[in-house]
Amino acid sequence: MLGVCYYPEHWSPALWPDDARRMADLGLKMVRIGEFAWSRLEPKPGAWQIDWLDQAIETLANAGLKIVIGTPTATPPKWLIDAHPDILPVDPHTGRVRGFGSRRHYDFSSRLYRDLAAGISEKLARHYGGHKAVIGWQTDNELCCHETALSISPQAVVAFRDWCRARYGTIAALNEAWGNVFWSMEYNDFSEIEAPYGAVTETAPAHRLAFRRFTSDQVALWHRAMIAAIRPHAGDQFITHNFIPMAETGVDNFALARGLDFASYDNYPLGRTDLVLADAGAEEFQRFMRTGHPDLGAWTFDQSRCLTPSRQFWVMEQQPGPVNWARHNPRPASGMVRLWTLEAFAHGATCVSYFRWRQAPFAQEQMHAGLLRPDHSEAEAWPEIKAVEAEIRQLKLADLPAPKPKIAMIVSAPSQWVTEIERQGDSYDHESLMRQYYTAFRSLGLDVDIVSTEDDLTGYRLICAPVLSIISEAEVEALQKSGATLVFGPRSGGKTADCAIPEGLAPGALRALLPIRILMAETLRPGCGGSLLWQGKHYSARAWRDHVDPGPAECLARFDDGSPALVQSGQAYYLAGLTDAPFLRDFFRHLCALPGLDLPTLDLPDDLRISRRGGLVFAFNYAAKAQPAPAPDGADFVLGSAMIPAHDVAIWKDI
Amino acid sequence: MLGVCYYPEHWSPALWPDDARRMADLGLKMVRIGEFAWSRLEPKPGAWQIDWLDQAIETLANAGLKIVIGTPTATPPKWLIDAHPDILPVDPHTGRVRGFGSRRHYDFSSRLYRDLAAGISEKLARHYGGHKAVIGWQTDNELCCHETALSISPQAVVAFRDWCRARYGTIAALNEAWGNVFWSMEYNDFSEIEAPYGAVTETAPAHRLAFRRFTSDQVALWHRAMIAAIRPHAGDQFITHNFIPMAETGVDNFALARGLDFASYDNYPLGRTDLVLADAGAEEFQRFMRTGHPDLGAWTFDQSRCLTPSRQFWVMEQQPGPVNWARHNPRPASGMVRLWTLEAFAHGATCVSYFRWRQAPFAQEQMHAGLLRPDHSEAEAWPEIKAVEAEIRQLKLADLPAPKPKIAMIVSAPSQWVTEIERQGDSYDHESLMRQYYTAFRSLGLDVDIVSTEDDLTGYRLICAPVLSIISEAEVEALQKSGATLVFGPRSGGKTADCAIPEGLAPGALRALLPIRILMAETLRPGCGGSLLWQGKHYSARAWRDHVDPGPAECLARFDDGSPALVQSGQAYYLAGLTDAPFLRDFFRHLCALPGLDLPTLDLPDDLRISRRGGLVFAFNYAAKAQPAPAPDGADFVLGSAMIPAHDVAIWKDI
Amino acid sequence: MLGVCYYPEHWSPALWPDDARRMADLGLKMVRIGEFAWSRLEPKPGAWQIDWLDQAIETLANAGLKIVIGTPTATPPKWLIDAHPDILPVDPHTGRVRGFGSRRHYDFSSRLYRDLAAGISEKLARHYGGHKAVIGWQTDNELCCHETALSISPQAVVAFRDWCRARYGTIAALNEAWGNVFWSMEYNDFSEIEAPYGAVTETAPAHRLAFRRFTSDQVALWHRAMIAAIRPHAGDQFITHNFIPMAETGVDNFALARGLDFASYDNYPLGRTDLVLADAGAEEFQRFMRTGHPDLGAWTFDQSRCLTPSRQFWVMEQQPGPVNWARHNPRPASGMVRLWTLEAFAHGATCVSYFRWRQAPFAQEQMHAGLLRPDHSEAEAWPEIKAVEAEIRQLKLADLPAPKPKIAMIVSAPSQWVTEIERQGDSYDHESLMRQYYTAFRSLGLDVDIVSTEDDLTGYRLICAPVLSIISEAEVEALQKSGATLVFGPRSGGKTADCAIPEGLAPGALRALLPIRILMAETLRPGCGGSLLWQGKHYSARAWRDHVDPGPAECLARFDDGSPALVQSGQAYYLAGLTDAPFLRDFFRHLCALPGLDLPTLDLPDDLRISRRGGLVFAFNYAAKAQPAPAPDGADFVLGSAMIPAHDVAIWKDI
Repeated sequence: MLGVCYYPEHWSPALWPDDARRMADLGLKMVRIGEFAWSRLEPKPGAWQIDWLDQAIETLANAGLKIVIGTPTATPPKWLIDAHPDILPVDPHTGRVRGFGSRRHYDFSSRLYRDLAAGISEKLARHYGGHKAVIGWQTDNELCCHETALSISPQAVVAFRDWCRARYGTIAALNEAWGNVFWSMEYNDFSEIEAPYGAVTETAPAHRLAFRRFTSDQVALWHRAMIAAIRPHAGDQFITHNFIPMAETGVDNFALARGLDFASYDNYPLGRTDLVLADAGAEEFQRFMRTGHPDLGAWTFDQSRCLTPSRQFWVMEQQPGPVNWARHNPRPASGMVRLWTLEAFAHGATCVSYFRWRQAPFAQEQMHAGLLRPDHSEAEAWPEIKAVEAEIRQLKLADLPAPKPKIAMIVSAPSQWVTEIERQGDSYDHESLMRQYYTAFRSLGLDVDIVSTEDDLTGYRLICAPVLSIISEAEVEALQKSGATLVFGPRSGGKTADCAIPEGLAPGALRALLPIRILMAETLRPGCGGSLLWQGKHYSARAWRDHVDPGPAECLARFDDGSPALVQSGQAYYLAGLTDAPFLRDFFRHLCALPGLDLPTLDLPDDLRISRRGGLVFAFNYAAKAQPAPAPDGADFVLGSAMIPAHDVAIWKDI
Repeated sequence: MLGVCYYPEHWSPALWPDDARRMADLGLKMVRIGEFAWSRLEPKPGAWQIDWLDQAIETLANAGLKIVIGTPTATPPKWLIDAHPDILPVDPHTGRVRGFGSRRHYDFSSRLYRDLAAGISEKLARHYGGHKAVIGWQTDNELCCHETALSISPQAVVAFRDWCRARYGTIAALNEAWGNVFWSMEYNDFSEIEAPYGAVTETAPAHRLAFRRFTSDQVALWHRAMIAAIRPHAGDQFITHNFIPMAETGVDNFALARGLDFASYDNYPLGRTDLVLADAGAEEFQRFMRTGHPDLGAWTFDQSRCLTPSRQFWVMEQQPGPVNWARHNPRPASGMVRLWTLEAFAHGATCVSYFRWRQAPFAQEQMHAGLLRPDHSEAEAWPEIKAVEAEIRQLKLADLPAPKPKIAMIVSAPSQWVTEIERQGDSYDHESLMRQYYTAFRSLGLDVDIVSTEDDLTGYRLICAPVLSIISEAEVEALQKSGATLVFGPRSGGKTADCAIPEGLAPGALRALLPIRILMAETLRPGCGGSLLWQGKHYSARAWRDHVDPGPAECLARFDDGSPALVQSGQAYYLAGLTDAPFLRDFFRHLCALPGLDLPTLDLPDDLRISRRGGLVFAFNYAAKAQPAPAPDGADFVLGSAMIPAHDVAIWKDI
Repeated sequence: MLGVCYYPEHWSPALWPDDARRMADLGLKMVRIGEFAWSRLEPKPGAWQIDWLDQAIETLANAGLKIVIGTPTATPPKWLIDAHPDILPVDPHTGRVRGFGSRRHYDFSSRLYRDLAAGISEKLARHYGGHKAVIGWQTDNELCCHETALSISPQAVVAFRDWCRARYGTIAALNEAWGNVFWSMEYNDFSEIEAPYGAVTETAPAHRLAFRRFTSDQVALWHRAMIAAIRPHAGDQFITHNFIPMAETGVDNFALARGLDFASYDNYPLGRTDLVLADAGAEEFQRFMRTGHPDLGAWTFDQSRCLTPSRQFWVMEQQPGPVNWARHNPRPASGMVRLWTLEAFAHGATCVSYFRWRQAPFAQEQMHAGLLRPDHSEAEAWPEIKAVEAEIRQLKLADLPAPKPKIAMIVSAPSQWVTEIERQGDSYDHESLMRQYYTAFRSLGLDVDIVSTEDDLTGYRLICAPVLSIISEAEVEALQKSGATLVFGPRSGGKTADCAIPEGLAPGALRALLPIRILMAETLRPGCGGSLLWQGKHYSARAWRDHVDPGPAECLARFDDGSPALVQSGQAYYLAGLTDAPFLRDFFRHLCALPGLDLPTLDLPDDLRISRRGGLVFAFNYAAKAQPAPAPDGADFVLGSAMIPAHDVAIWKDI
């Protein structure tokens, strides 16, 4: 199903019927509305006005469209802020209050605001809970976007103290857990604890990790209150949220997704590629500036799909033209809106919804394309959406079962926090190394789930944890029980739950699987990382190097200084450093070919990717030239053919 | 006439007579004094001391020198600030009060300070209004320098609310104009409005544009109060101000100049070149590090000349040696002080005044050269000034009529604000693209006026608006009426007065001249801009690309993707993107050769420039080697000759 | 003697005896303890607990170890800060209070804290003053580390006003000295003075210099209170402090060292090299990333030795493996811990103490190596320390007399402040140019003292002042009396004590020795510095160029523009600009060969260095390959031999 984001409050009601008709004509089935409309629903204290929204929904429903209502809690109006200015968050880096005038100006630790936000969510849910045209709910919008997870407001500090009391019980236990004796940082009472910002030099890693855990918990707590406000009235209506990737928010999206029916994602490939390739040379960047990086959308789709047990997801917002928020904002290459749409379905989407119906001629996003231009004319993406709607309908793509990869990559918010808190080397970057692993799998034509250690891990043949810094005995056991081949990257098992070095050294609990010891770790500047030797071939190393005492484990590769680069113990492998892309690709190809895994691999160019869902293989050509589909001879194509034109797609039946 | 800036209060009165004598001996006629001397005029509350200034003026006048008095309002003394600390401005980016200890520590929205500043200005005007030796007044000093236009002090916010009330009448009108419905940013009352800083993410463009308009208006209002305080007592004495270019202050200098007799400019070619060429490679930079960029002084002179209907200007401060405030501060090449002086006259100056008489051995500018060194010896520029004084006198350069270019470039503060508020691409820079256009004209040997749309536009053959973002119907009409060929750059007509996309799409009101539609705009990284094809030749495109529906207009050039790069409708041309320098040069050369324009062009190297004034052609050789003057055979040279030595000047009679 | 830093409070007392035994077994003789333990000594107001420390000392003493007690004043506990929050310093750049949560969270201008800190220091001194195993005291820890010298807290501003009153007597004298007339900055009373931060643009250089002097004085005053608290009880026990180089703290370390028995230094070659070579290319950096830059340790050792008349120093903390605080943190190359240790002794150390005994598995420094790993196993440096301990013992290196260089380099905190306050060119960097001079001497195989002008200068043959900005007549006289050849770099004598240009121009008082005048100074971008010609050879100039009127002095070299680059008058030389390394090396080699100096020089590669102490010559091979020792034929080697292996040392008898 395809949909669109619509803001009836931005337009004259006289336009609504025609808008609804044109949406239906385009083949759209779903319209998301309402998400920022608090000042229209409640223009003044106590003045509730919902007639206009009733009318808008009626108009859309009359055209056969289904409605998803976004709660407007990301934008409390000015009168509310002026009445309760302590709703505003405080920037940890500057200590300044973050004010009104845009969006997301609230503190997750404000109990008052949580109640107010739950209140308006419930009010809407009571009103539309039984509405036939309303099929679901989106809570808030892009929680924690604009770096709003972290706040050091007075109420956040008070809540943090409570959180600490709940976690540690006694102040002595906290002092012990955080190693506060180190610099006389010991507290006599929980009320002495501050947020770990603004100190003379770095605060204790355990203090910072606790604050990150607290922050993530506060967001999840806030979100659960929203879900709880809606659910009793929702009946068959689903509840979802359009997530920002946790690499960016620093919040545990698995925790945040609990209680939702499925996760949604807002897909802006060009804006994100501009940011991700910020340091790329012009020549390298130019290849993908109008297509997005071929592994970027997929990486976020695979994350989104795996956030809930449903293993489905929506693209709630899909870029249909240039956006306004990256450092440069090119238009998409012709064909890409269709390609991105099909790619989402290939990775498990059940709905793709474009943002937005009509480009707004005013306010912050007026340089952001829509399906219509401000003068109501059809914008560039229109014919592509027309075409892809028919294809999706004919191939019933939305109804295919979810993808079932044999490979899982483990991501973990606490591990991300650890690497951000204790970077140790400036060139160590959690997100880019995660993507490096992901790209290695994808370049071999492999599908990947992005999972948490708390997920059911059975059924995977290969589970890869590029950096699982904190790992419990229970998690080790679950990994072992999965029966999968296990690959751990450097720093895995490097920390306890309170960000200390484990007893008996790293990899701590992981030593049950890998009886090695990390004697020391070093970090290395770009270009100074040396090399590693594996199976007679030299590869580049970089950034991070664990010095491993292999103990009884087998050493499969060594760094230039002779220390182990890759060790194996039974089903488990430990990679002791970061490497170049060729090594990961060669190593994973080698693993996949081993008996027991037996996963066929391909050698795909970096601008061609495949995905499998429901008995179909999808191939996406990100290149500006035609490329052959990596399909077997005589493949049965249901879309396209053996030679895929530039920026086009082929689909054939999997055998 | 030549002059000098002098601070008698910095020196023992015993030195004044000899200083005056040496000034006169050097041929100087004018001395500017007084501009920072508040603490000497009013050392304590109510203690007025003007005897010393009387004596200094008397001493200078006795040597035959004329006086320009700078009012000391840029430097309120500490006792005044301590008595009224709310005079201090507040930094919008940090929220910190900007304190005492340097200069310009006042808020343009402080009514109290405006009254106090007008008070001391009037007091001086009353005292010296009838003084024969006093020929004029300089208000304050370099208004808005050090980024002091913007302030978010409490009084600025209150004034902004009043300004909004005056502009919009009702809060509903403001909400509508700003598109505040977008993110529930709607207000119920003007008292709810804040300055558009410190919000969680970007504030509304209309909000920001309003604050920029307000800020500029506040500065102009403040300045008008100063002029009003002086004028009644000034008699024949002129009033001027030494402007900072509006590219830097973000204030509408046309508005600020209203009420002045002429504008002045402080010319520091080396310091400014260091900043403008901040990213240039060493080899490129080295060419101009001791000369200044050849188009930089001229660009500011042409702006200064056109700020008032008089079409004359002063250089109130001219760098005579190294300065102290750029990132690196080289000495000028030998000959350049003379060259810069002649160049100012060529562009319409009637006085060039050097800054400063004697290098101060103390305080902030002790590394800033003067005409004398701190030990009273003659500094490097002395003989050059001696020489140029004679040349100016003999050629009567100061008395020549103002230059009368046939080409006008339109600049507009609101257009500058729009591009700063909504940059859309990091490589889009308003000032550098304005200079790119200017350089193209100058490289063809053409003289240029830099005008506002409110100026009289008749008489120009070519009017070029590199980016006139906001344009009214009245302005379109004026442009049309001028009869000139019109060239508009990309983004022209892109916004309404409230920073929205015009109805019927860009270029809005300009569609009366150019019946095209801008369907979309995209921005592109350096090196990723693609190309355009014009008259069979390929040029580089860059940074910004409008996608044009040409309608009935003729398409003269296309981008690599086939979309129109240059369209023409009658006398009007629309250039849809930014380009390389060769395109602009070739395109303008082509236009100038068309019947009706018929402007002869030259092909000048980038280190040679010519200017015309009063029947003379001036040629300035910025190169370190001799170059032939671009003069016709048998030209009648009144200065120099057909081969211009390094860093030298030739002048011949125009035919 | 070798030692180690130990934190018994971090470990179970059950571990102490075994730790003590292993220390003794390794040959360590000294243990530093106590420095951050305030929260254990005084866990709550008035609750004094010293039994645990008694027990720890007893345990160590029983193993034959000597104790140095570090006072815990760098880490006041939270209860104390909560009771007196105005102890906290205020960041001058942001105006924010710098809070609790790490270390050094106190303001040197807090009288209360000074008393509290002196109080606990005295309490400890009373307790352990007579203890036989306690051989000395370390005050606080790394004073002013983490940029804590500067604070603009209310109490700092009040203290600054008092300091100004004491220095200038009357406000008129201060106004005159600071040149406050310049921008109406004149005060009527000392109470009007603020810290020179947060103004609209730059504050007066004299104001800033005064604040730097004040800041340095406050730190020294604070430190003297600590020494005064300990000394009466210390008996034979020494008092030292582990200094941060003044290049980093901006504090006058000579003043700070007064009253100490000797200075100590914390030597972290890899971390510091990462910072110093921050802009180096990968290839250049890689050479020294595991060894440290060959002149960096020596440069700090020579400074430390010369801080007290004893001309000895300790390395109180020596890096034994990777650290945690640089931008990247590689491991040391094998052999380097031994090399660094021997190098410290060669430069005059009498004790090298490793930081720390056992790597902490918790808190801020858990990625910082120790001699033991957290699991009690011996870390990488262990065998090297074992080896070097025997060598030091056998060669009695700790008992050798102090080095006696014939060359002195003058450093001066006020000169450093002047160049930081008035940089004038971004590429002028005080510390890197000091090191450039130092490297030139060291590359010639010369030993260098780093002295203050207040030191006894007799006995030196060559005294070099790379930039002695402020110089008094008395200092000039002392330099002249020394009888040494004198070399002054550019900017020398450039300022009065109040940061003004001296009467009669620079070099001010230095004109008694060098009868020249600096007419002008210019600064030049990297790559734009031109060249100088000396003895027929061209060298590169850079960054800074004084324009010299040589007067009767002889001009030995000229810049490309003909102005003097090097002038000589009698025994004194003035170098008018910064240059490349070859010029300094050639020039110093030339000087050393002159009659009267007669200092033999070598030509050492940049990865080989020699040092002399007590009749021995030490050679340190920083290269990854063997290199010949620069020893005379038939040299008598007491360690190593004529070919020095990679990262190894040779020692032979000086003849």
